[in-house]
Amino acid sequence: MKPDSVAMMELSGLHKQGAVCIFGTGNFGRSLGFRLLQAGYEVTYGSRHPGKSALLPKGAKVTTHEEALQEAQVIFLAVHREQYGFLASLSPALEGKVLVDISNNVRRGQYPESNAEYLRKLVPGAVVIKAFNTISAWALQAGGLDANRQVLICGDCASAKQAVADIAHGLGLAPLDRGSLRAASELEDIPLQLFPLWRLPLRLGAGLLAAFFTYNVIRDVVHARVTDGKDRSFRIMISLANKAFPDVALVMLSLCYLPGAMAAVLQLRNSTKYRRFPDWLDRWMLCRKQLGLLALAFAVLHVLYTLVIPIRYYVFYRRATIYVGLMQENKTLEFNNVMAWRSDAYLSMGMLGFALFVLLGITSLPSVSNSLNWREFGFIQSKLGHTTLLLCTAHTFLYGWDNFLQPSAYKWLTPRSYMLALVVPCVVLALKAVLITPCVDRAVGRIRQGWEREGKGRAPEDNANNHLPLIL
Amino acid sequence: MKPDSVAMMELSGLHKQGAVCIFGTGNFGRSLGFRLLQAGYEVTYGSRHPGKSALLPKGAKVTTHEEALQEAQVIFLAVHREQYGFLASLSPALEGKVLVDISNNVRRGQYPESNAEYLRKLVPGAVVIKAFNTISAWALQAGGLDANRQVLICGDCASAKQAVADIAHGLGLAPLDRGSLRAASELEDIPLQLFPLWRLPLRLGAGLLAAFFTYNVIRDVVHARVTDGKDRSFRIMISLANKAFPDVALVMLSLCYLPGAMAAVLQLRNSTKYRRFPDWLDRWMLCRKQLGLLALAFAVLHVLYTLVIPIRYYVFYRRATIYVGLMQENKTLEFNNVMAWRSDAYLSMGMLGFALFVLLGITSLPSVSNSLNWREFGFIQSKLGHTTLLLCTAHTFLYGWDNFLQPSAYKWLTPRSYMLALVVPCVVLALKAVLITPCVDRAVGRIRQGWEREGKGRAPEDNANNHLPLIL
Amino acid sequence: MKPDSVAMMELSGLHKQGAVCIFGTGNFGRSLGFRLLQAGYEVTYGSRHPGKSALLPKGAKVTTHEEALQEAQVIFLAVHREQYGFLASLSPALEGKVLVDISNNVRRGQYPESNAEYLRKLVPGAVVIKAFNTISAWALQAGGLDANRQVLICGDCASAKQAVADIAHGLGLAPLDRGSLRAASELEDIPLQLFPLWRLPLRLGAGLLAAFFTYNVIRDVVHARVTDGKDRSFRIMISLANKAFPDVALVMLSLCYLPGAMAAVLQLRNSTKYRRFPDWLDRWMLCRKQLGLLALAFAVLHVLYTLVIPIRYYVFYRRATIYVGLMQENKTLEFNNVMAWRSDAYLSMGMLGFALFVLLGITSLPSVSNSLNWREFGFIQSKLGHTTLLLCTAHTFLYGWDNFLQPSAYKWLTPRSYMLALVVPCVVLALKAVLITPCVDRAVGRIRQGWEREGKGRAPEDNANNHLPLIL
Repeated sequence: MKPDSVAMMELSGLHKQGAVCIFGTGNFGRSLGFRLLQAGYEVTYGSRHPGKSALLPKGAKVTTHEEALQEAQVIFLAVHREQYGFLASLSPALEGKVLVDISNNVRRGQYPESNAEYLRKLVPGAVVIKAFNTISAWALQAGGLDANRQVLICGDCASAKQAVADIAHGLGLAPLDRGSLRAASELEDIPLQLFPLWRLPLRLGAGLLAAFFTYNVIRDVVHARVTDGKDRSFRIMISLANKAFPDVALVMLSLCYLPGAMAAVLQLRNSTKYRRFPDWLDRWMLCRKQLGLLALAFAVLHVLYTLVIPIRYYVFYRRATIYVGLMQENKTLEFNNVMAWRSDAYLSMGMLGFALFVLLGITSLPSVSNSLNWREFGFIQSKLGHTTLLLCTAHTFLYGWDNFLQPSAYKWLTPRSYMLALVVPCVVLALKAVLITPCVDRAVGRIRQGWEREGKGRAPEDNANNHLPLIL
Repeated sequence: MKPDSVAMMELSGLHKQGAVCIFGTGNFGRSLGFRLLQAGYEVTYGSRHPGKSALLPKGAKVTTHEEALQEAQVIFLAVHREQYGFLASLSPALEGKVLVDISNNVRRGQYPESNAEYLRKLVPGAVVIKAFNTISAWALQAGGLDANRQVLICGDCASAKQAVADIAHGLGLAPLDRGSLRAASELEDIPLQLFPLWRLPLRLGAGLLAAFFTYNVIRDVVHARVTDGKDRSFRIMISLANKAFPDVALVMLSLCYLPGAMAAVLQLRNSTKYRRFPDWLDRWMLCRKQLGLLALAFAVLHVLYTLVIPIRYYVFYRRATIYVGLMQENKTLEFNNVMAWRSDAYLSMGMLGFALFVLLGITSLPSVSNSLNWREFGFIQSKLGHTTLLLCTAHTFLYGWDNFLQPSAYKWLTPRSYMLALVVPCVVLALKAVLITPCVDRAVGRIRQGWEREGKGRAPEDNANNHLPLIL
Repeated sequence: MKPDSVAMMELSGLHKQGAVCIFGTGNFGRSLGFRLLQAGYEVTYGSRHPGKSALLPKGAKVTTHEEALQEAQVIFLAVHREQYGFLASLSPALEGKVLVDISNNVRRGQYPESNAEYLRKLVPGAVVIKAFNTISAWALQAGGLDANRQVLICGDCASAKQAVADIAHGLGLAPLDRGSLRAASELEDIPLQLFPLWRLPLRLGAGLLAAFFTYNVIRDVVHARVTDGKDRSFRIMISLANKAFPDVALVMLSLCYLPGAMAAVLQLRNSTKYRRFPDWLDRWMLCRKQLGLLALAFAVLHVLYTLVIPIRYYVFYRRATIYVGLMQENKTLEFNNVMAWRSDAYLSMGMLGFALFVLLGITSLPSVSNSLNWREFGFIQSKLGHTTLLLCTAHTFLYGWDNFLQPSAYKWLTPRSYMLALVVPCVVLALKAVLITPCVDRAVGRIRQGWEREGKGRAPEDNANNHLPLIL
């Protein structure tokens, strides 16, 4: 008999006589049992009080812990770490069994060692596997269609890991081996993470927003109060917020593209790509997508705050004042062709830039970016991204128009906030303009293909899909 | 040698000599054959008129049914149930073969028993497996990238199911065992479902919309006609629609969060989470996502209908009347600081609420929610969700301002519609405010960790990811 | 020995002593090694200069090419085709090994034969498999969650393909067999494609945009200059763009639904669905989704350009002129009930149409459409799609109102551009109206069920999910 067919028989056996044991009758235990039963496994629950267990899925047996693990090779442990004590007495019966630890903690660093490693000490005879802790009870019951299907597995015994992976496959989930049991603490931290990649961009966004907002409040409300004694504080809600939003959006969008340009400059200076980037640059590059999406959120707010302008009472009042003023002086408004061009130009730059920005946001949705190949993704995130930045910068310049040169724009000698916001985008666009000149572009390309100045040591051993994504 | 292992050996050979037979040369049969050929299977079509079969994929053989099934262990049956008759005569040749029923019906309950179970009666010697009926011909041809890749399988023989699952794997699809052949009728119903989870929210939305709209028509158009004899019916199209949309959106958004609060209250009253919720509450909780998305749709309409206000002829006319009136009375409009604050405040509350609402909608896209862990999903859907509700409620209160106290706001003694719409959100927010007070929060937390008042019978056997998602 | 443990040993074989070799220490080689190590494989890098290799993942060995391949059965070749030369000298050692070519080229058709086939000639003793070239280094390191997980594999040896597929599975990826090594050139083209399905719609969109824009510039700016000598060129930026955008959006939306109607007409004429559609119709039908999404992009621009109208300087100027004019003539504006109806009617048709259009766009996101079954997808894309087209057409007609009959609307005898844009939608809606009349609908239904006029030759061998998707 070929070894192949032996393995096959084994596997096919799983569906018929595959007995699996679950310790713990909580939500997760119940959902897991439900799904296992549906996939054809025999499920036995081990419980301290077999008679009292309610709400268990139909078709499952409930018995004592000792009995439950008799027939099963794989035991799922769906109880809190605090209850692991009862396992000590079961140690002999657990000898050689696969014990799957699916527990999670309430906060990070709650215990010095991972639950799985603690379990291994407690029951040294069993093979402890950490798995399923990143899957939710709800995802198991909903059938895995609408939720994360990835089951991360770690442990020290390859065959035990494979057995758990097979069960995960049988449940329609996607197992992924994450190495030895030392990785367990990492796996246990995953469900406790709260947007780790978003932290830096969110802080940056909040900081920039506070800075630009305060700056505008001082230049506008405080200045008016101090100089003229006027109360313009009502402008805080919309007028000033709508000055801070676009500034933050523009700066953050340009901060998405700055690290890429800096990386290219570094590679040019080092004349190699085989030197690591400084840590801060690596971290920056990893959160570019989040930076961009946050910039998009600010841009959306800017658009909304701009579009409600004509509905505001203040605008209604000001227009009425202008119209009535015109009448009282018996003047007609002179048509100003330059004003018409300027207003239409900055509005349309802004709208085109915003539309492209939304497109960038859509392509960064996981399911959309997954359906793009490497070249398409790069095209959108780099070419369209820089075009977006260009359009938005042009939008701001056209909005400013001749204010850059008028002394009256500099109240208390401070420039308007959009002038400050233009600094970073201009630097990024200038850098990019240099990097895409043919000679520099060729040099960077050569370096990214593995070329080095010394040119001796290393062959260009690399293939085409080697760039870090110039993501949004 | 067991029959199981025979089938398996057969299958392990599949990549080389794996012969598969397809009965039926329609779209599905052709697409399936195309994909099987591409994955290295030998495909033979069985046809009543082998000579006349056109459009079949290159590389496939076509022959009579009898001949076609000779070499194959697995036969795909891609014909309508109405044509199953011809299989009776093939019964002896089908003995021991795996017969995969992929048929679907035109409507639910068309036949008393599922097609697969009918087939089993017809050809008792064959092993009938129901599979592939939820996959479309188009998804097969498009390569499965852009379409649902899940192949639901049910049947009574584990090894036969495994054989079909292996083929599905070979085609790059994700097989999922759904149990015995009794589940076939369930599987056959899946392609006939039309948004089952959306039905209740859609009905509710339509009902609320009709109610609020009619209410506003009576208060506005009918009232004006009866009282003053004025025709204000043109207001139906935008003004009144834009009163009904936000009301429905607000009520439906708060209905998303009401069941969660009610569940917590129930758990507190029962002092256990091990008692089932009443059925209506379960059903309600299951469609919260749909309720929320529908509320978002109404909110989008509200935003659109609000933003076009300054473009409307009626608004142009009214403003002209006001300006001209001001002039004729030779008055200037007095600046009203309170009005400026009020208008800006309700607009910005609304826009911030809407932006958060859109964020909630985006995170409920399957590919986005799949990339979140449990804690992140809970944070967004519960924390951000309640913040959204709070902002939108504040938006409505600020919009109403002092109208709540003015008798003139109560035409025919009826309150304005947004006052009615505020009832449910206020209840939800009040409940939530109680539930997040430290002492109540601790009690709910203890219960959700498995604690009971009696405290004896049951250990807190549960792990952290046990909450039903507080989804949008 | 228990059968259980046999299976385990079998399976564990891969994980314990599974030695894999990688030639090439570039980005891809490093990322692949990292992932393989994580999944429990032994990884040995073969390098020309083993001492100089930096940045390699911890736990991997580096040695000469000759030594590296000793223990491994599978060798990943992560070098450029230009460096394949060194393999010739390794030929004897490579005898019988599986050599996985993951290389990509810089542009299509760079070499007459695929890299994999070239490799096969170079090392005839090895089994060459093409795989992993569509996966990016970044996707491998990021864990495959956020990126395309599909590994396309082709090659001439089934067991070697299976070995590579097993490794892909082990890395949490989804292998898909794409046939013999002849498919390699196809696989090598995939990462070089740049939106192949978008090409035709993009060209069409650009062409239509240019045509409508030019037409409007001539009718508006040139006409005004020639007739009155007025300079209205500032209108190009927003006013005229906002005439071209909706026209293009409407035409492209209707072009989504035209091929479906034409296919039904063709099937009716041929009285069979077993005749291939002409090639151009097939190509057209395949890019309907892209046509629709592009139409949506133009519709979004139309909405943005419309909503900024009241912020434009020109509009401010014109309104001021009107108000002042009214005052100077001492008139009040007469309320025009018809105008109020018309303005509100076309605005609300447009907004409802746009909201439905956005809904269509959302459901065409891969992760959303994957969660719909066939019937739901058809319902949205066909029923809601045609409703969207109907609403948008009504929006345009209401916008035109009585201009269709007024000679003054026809400057230089040319109709307004939206009148031209209405032609295709009207044709599509008329065709659709005919096709859904009960008798025609029944005839089409019969044909799609496999019925033919002759009615003899072919049984209706088909199942329900046989329609090409009437996608957006």
